[in-house]
Amino acid sequence: MFFKHIHTDKSTKARAGLIQTDHGAIETPIFMPVGTQATVKTLSPDELTAAQAQIILGNTYHLYMRPGADLIEEFGGLHRFMNWNKPMLTDSGGYQVFSLKELRKIDPKGVTFHSHLDGSKHYFTPASVLAVQQKLGSDIMMVLDECAPYPSNREYAQASNQLTVEWAREARELYESHEFLYGHKQFLFGIVQGSTFKDIREQSAKELVKLDFPGYSIGGLAVGEPKEEMYELTDFCTDFLPAEKPRYLMGVGMPEDILESIARGVDMFDCVIPTRNARNGTVFTSKGKMVLKAAKFKHDQNPIDSDCTCYTCKNFTRGYLRHLYNANEILGLRLATIHNIHFYLWLVTEARKHILDNTFATWKEEILEQVTSTVESSNTKP
Amino acid sequence: MFFKHIHTDKSTKARAGLIQTDHGAIETPIFMPVGTQATVKTLSPDELTAAQAQIILGNTYHLYMRPGADLIEEFGGLHRFMNWNKPMLTDSGGYQVFSLKELRKIDPKGVTFHSHLDGSKHYFTPASVLAVQQKLGSDIMMVLDECAPYPSNREYAQASNQLTVEWAREARELYESHEFLYGHKQFLFGIVQGSTFKDIREQSAKELVKLDFPGYSIGGLAVGEPKEEMYELTDFCTDFLPAEKPRYLMGVGMPEDILESIARGVDMFDCVIPTRNARNGTVFTSKGKMVLKAAKFKHDQNPIDSDCTCYTCKNFTRGYLRHLYNANEILGLRLATIHNIHFYLWLVTEARKHILDNTFATWKEEILEQVTSTVESSNTKP
Repeated sequence: MFFKHIHTDKSTKARAGLIQTDHGAIETPIFMPVGTQATVKTLSPDELTAAQAQIILGNTYHLYMRPGADLIEEFGGLHRFMNWNKPMLTDSGGYQVFSLKELRKIDPKGVTFHSHLDGSKHYFTPASVLAVQQKLGSDIMMVLDECAPYPSNREYAQASNQLTVEWAREARELYESHEFLYGHKQFLFGIVQGSTFKDIREQSAKELVKLDFPGYSIGGLAVGEPKEEMYELTDFCTDFLPAEKPRYLMGVGMPEDILESIARGVDMFDCVIPTRNARNGTVFTSKGKMVLKAAKFKHDQNPIDSDCTCYTCKNFTRGYLRHLYNANEILGLRLATIHNIHFYLWLVTEARKHILDNTFATWKEEILEQVTSTVESSNTKP
Repeated sequence: MFFKHIHTDKSTKARAGLIQTDHGAIETPIFMPVGTQATVKTLSPDELTAAQAQIILGNTYHLYMRPGADLIEEFGGLHRFMNWNKPMLTDSGGYQVFSLKELRKIDPKGVTFHSHLDGSKHYFTPASVLAVQQKLGSDIMMVLDECAPYPSNREYAQASNQLTVEWAREARELYESHEFLYGHKQFLFGIVQGSTFKDIREQSAKELVKLDFPGYSIGGLAVGEPKEEMYELTDFCTDFLPAEKPRYLMGVGMPEDILESIARGVDMFDCVIPTRNARNGTVFTSKGKMVLKAAKFKHDQNPIDSDCTCYTCKNFTRGYLRHLYNANEILGLRLATIHNIHFYLWLVTEARKHILDNTFATWKEEILEQVTSTVESSNTKP
């Protein structure tokens, strides 16, 4: 069985589950660190494991461009290429292609676009992105979708979703004869689109559910719409998705977004925020956010978070981290990334415990207040 | 006893020894990775330990500028600030100050210079650099010296060395009442200068030996003179230094320079080459140098060096490393740095074994031929 729905919290839609892949199990809800170019930026595989990462994400568009799917196939797939032996999910590349705006042109069969690296011309179809993901060898693959921009008018959203559903149908059929190149199984998820229109979202979800995918993504959110609208649309979508299949909210988000979306029935998340913000010097903790470069941390001999058990918090002070950022030292980026990934995984692990205990709702309110605050410095020694 | 001279190779001047500090022992000959700004660039302290680093170097000039010696004192010294609990050596800052050229002015008491960061004016004296190193809390400190540029005329070299000896005498006297701020002992080395003039080098060494330092550095080499001249001057200098004191050749060098200098009686080395070259994509191995970015490694599924036991070589291929460099991923810089530091420490450890076995001379010739060659790619799988 690919997914086991273990428990739903008594007072929210929050779920605890278990995904089973040939590279190991994943306890849900889960956050997936983003490894765009065959590396989660600044981290080694050992550090990801130490941070409790259970599954990471690879970006099909970027890997297709560089180093190319054929080269990765030569190396025995993405797991072997980057030496990551746990589960891996790849997106379809659609999101990146549609983000190119001026550089792409859509037709009923696929999308033509120009590389952001060298301007060369490429064509993605439901079949071609499946073939690329086959060579990458991810445990979970995505169908090609069009992520409608925000805001979109009803007409655009309707047509776009119709195309996305057509492409999903085509991919689902192709999957029937999909071969696993490296011995391990690959699962294919459908992606619910429909922009901000509930009826189109409903239609999208229902069509995809008919195609019987092993899991469903919710796409086209976190693209600029107000947070409340994102939460409401997520809540709306999960009502149309089967309980016995995992739900993945693509590209989300801040710690508060993850908590709110878990409460609305989402099981899986990915986002560049913990890694990108770490490189910009912002870290997240159970007591709130901190901008490590701030002068207020110059004399601070406390760890980022005295309750955190990550390598960074067990070994280094805020004052030292501030120095590393000030001096443009790579170790600073690494240590902050280790902490942020560890924190995101701590957050979903805690969420799961509280779901299983039926205490999720009250815990969520408490932790929300904390994670959305700002940490002040303490100049006293720990 | 600070230094124990254990053995001299039967057919060269190569020595095996042991340095004892309050932060642990150091087996010589030793290479010291450079941690300019309170971090060996890209590496964590755990990775340095895994790479068998026994002692690292901190740069007094850079640390004095940023974050400042007072801040480091507040944090309990450089060991605690950066979480490195093994031995540490600091230079005097002189080399960096004299490299500023246009920005500095020398007088008999010290040197006035302008910060490379903000142009602010500063003054270093033999007493002030000792005070800075006292706050840093390094296990081994250096006296303030003037590193004469290459080429220097005899008159300049003579005057410069006279000043360096005067400053060494002043520092040596100050050291008599030097207090250890953090409980552990600090040792002070004198620095032999004299540019390329043997008689001035001899005079310098003899004057310093009279002052009875626990160890002696050889400075002012590897500043642009031909390699053969560097080897010859090193060989010349060590003849005037006592056998029962360690000798440190500052800022050297390439693997071949280290081997040639060990053969000429040097015990300690530091250089940015393994770390800086790693960040530029060049790695050193027992079979020669490799430029990882080279297209020839694109399909290469071998590790950098199949005989190497570092984390990088045990887990990643040349083809993957090439991809990381091509994609500007920080992990590439890290993995190459891990390998290079591990290689440099492997090299001095092997040298020590062969010194103790009296087989250093023949081993040196064999390994020299290997390390100075270039590794070709092998497209076959390992």
